[in-house]
Amino acid sequence: MDSQTNTEDCLAWAATDPSGVLSPYKFSRRPLGSDDVSIKITHCGICYADVIWSRNMLGDSKYPVVPGHEIAGIVKEIGSNVQRFKVGDHVGVGTYVNSCRDCEYCNVGFEVHCEKPKVPTFNGIDVDGTVTKGGYSSFIVVHERYCFKIPNNYALASAAPLLCAGITVYTPMMRHNMNQPGKSLGVIGLGGLGHMAVKFGKAFGLNVTVLSTSISKKEEALRLLGADKFVVSSDQEQMKDLSKSLDFIVDTASGNHPFDPYLSLLKTAGVYALVGFPSEVKFSPASLNLGMKMLAGSMTGGTKMIQEMIDFCAAQKIYPQIEVIPIQYANEALERLVKRDVKYRFVIDIENTLK
Amino acid sequence: MDSQTNTEDCLAWAATDPSGVLSPYKFSRRPLGSDDVSIKITHCGICYADVIWSRNMLGDSKYPVVPGHEIAGIVKEIGSNVQRFKVGDHVGVGTYVNSCRDCEYCNVGFEVHCEKPKVPTFNGIDVDGTVTKGGYSSFIVVHERYCFKIPNNYALASAAPLLCAGITVYTPMMRHNMNQPGKSLGVIGLGGLGHMAVKFGKAFGLNVTVLSTSISKKEEALRLLGADKFVVSSDQEQMKDLSKSLDFIVDTASGNHPFDPYLSLLKTAGVYALVGFPSEVKFSPASLNLGMKMLAGSMTGGTKMIQEMIDFCAAQKIYPQIEVIPIQYANEALERLVKRDVKYRFVIDIENTLK
Repeated sequence: MDSQTNTEDCLAWAATDPSGVLSPYKFSRRPLGSDDVSIKITHCGICYADVIWSRNMLGDSKYPVVPGHEIAGIVKEIGSNVQRFKVGDHVGVGTYVNSCRDCEYCNVGFEVHCEKPKVPTFNGIDVDGTVTKGGYSSFIVVHERYCFKIPNNYALASAAPLLCAGITVYTPMMRHNMNQPGKSLGVIGLGGLGHMAVKFGKAFGLNVTVLSTSISKKEEALRLLGADKFVVSSDQEQMKDLSKSLDFIVDTASGNHPFDPYLSLLKTAGVYALVGFPSEVKFSPASLNLGMKMLAGSMTGGTKMIQEMIDFCAAQKIYPQIEVIPIQYANEALERLVKRDVKYRFVIDIENTLK
Repeated sequence: MDSQTNTEDCLAWAATDPSGVLSPYKFSRRPLGSDDVSIKITHCGICYADVIWSRNMLGDSKYPVVPGHEIAGIVKEIGSNVQRFKVGDHVGVGTYVNSCRDCEYCNVGFEVHCEKPKVPTFNGIDVDGTVTKGGYSSFIVVHERYCFKIPNNYALASAAPLLCAGITVYTPMMRHNMNQPGKSLGVIGLGGLGHMAVKFGKAFGLNVTVLSTSISKKEEALRLLGADKFVVSSDQEQMKDLSKSLDFIVDTASGNHPFDPYLSLLKTAGVYALVGFPSEVKFSPASLNLGMKMLAGSMTGGTKMIQEMIDFCAAQKIYPQIEVIPIQYANEALERLVKRDVKYRFVIDIENTLK
């Protein structure tokens, strides 16, 4: 490894205990390896995962935790073997920064399911044994395989949420053929993930119905996001009208909710993609068996599909709806995210505010 | 319709109230229509559905209930338009006897998912408005589309359980590509359905593991049915050894059981086919999401696949393990079925005992 000693200080915001409160923090990134790129971070999206690990909700947080896995920035240095990037390129980094690169899943570009397994972008163990630190920081060093090209005509702030929210819904939609024009898609939950599912659905030529617990998002869903229909899931009359009418559902809700009413909306052989993490999934077997329906789990996506999705978004001019904030607002933003008070993704302006 | 007046009495055993106790009963079948075949029933398998409707467990039983939807017999008369059968042919009838014959699913021979929907073999409403009556009877009149040829070298007694137990596991196995030699299959529950899943799995060249709550079935599973491995699901050590090792699981258990431990046995992208009807399905979303696994519901099968399965069983010499009983033993057999005291399917000898 032709690593170079890297003495540059990395500025960041980190949580230091389970209160999850973030505050300024400094650390050193690992030296640049021959296959690595060093990226000046310009933007980082805020994902619910940032709340989970900064607050130790799964009991495995390794403090200090520097969150952030929706990273966009500009290449500032490359290792001697790097082929795909040059200094100045606009790039993104998503939810993982390493994998075995030699298993069945790595071999087909589906590294998120690496058998070893993959190394998360923060709170994982890096190649040098240190704890990985995410995008609430001024720069990051990553093996080029886990970096993605962002076209110059696609704003870096808009690109950030694609790296987790975007790919998390794009992956099951592609895997389960939810890109067939004329078919019908239901989207449960209209947050960072759900609003991207609506946009992808429209780009694929689908008839998109948003299923929400609250009428408050109706106008935006129809006018801003372009959904074809908006149904309040507690309205039994509306739900009945929708019975057996949907080819697919993408369920992005992380809160607990019943599954039977939503499964009843699927046509025979319909597919229900689950990407959220409610505390449990519970339904009657008849809801699945009688119409030979499928419930399919999914989780972010592989490097191959991430690049494909970014290119698709650039070509189709699909942009997440974002609220750009300074790093100093991060704690309040996390609180608002917990309260679901965000339309539809916070993106931290790292470049101009983390100094 | 060139129907003929049918004055013949049909002998049967029926439940007349929610006690579910069966007793001798007589009724008239509808006249033979031009597309119908009239079948002298020789055998009828006993399925858990017979318990459900004879005891009004779903609250929709239309008494008197003549159960039985695993019917085998001999054609005794055919309508003027009947093309596929002649008098003397060995035939079977399964879980439904009519459908719209004009919807998306009927058009591809998947009538069990008919949009109208299909008419069950018993406790449904027949074309003449009467309640359909099943195979615990001396003969039946059925549209030829819902009859299947049983090769003469395949015993009618053995054929009966194929019409529900067999097709219920064969359908999801074929739909989800569980017929790829060398892959690994887990079978949960070793009753009428599960033991057929083991036999199909071995015929497909799979490595078959039986997952059971009790060690008592081990020897038979391995020696008689040919399973490669037998694991007691409460043995955490054995279950851990099996972690992420199975390509597919067929869950035939109708009793309540946890799902997370079984889902953990699937490889990434593994498929869990659900054909039983426990009171609920409950699991952690992580069990599905982290390995992009799929839970797929299924229910018996279409006419096209039923005939294919029968022919496959005849060609491969696959026979259900049956206990042939007289109709007079039916009540005791239903009780034993409820107590899961059957290896592995009761078949009523209608021909020789219903007189």
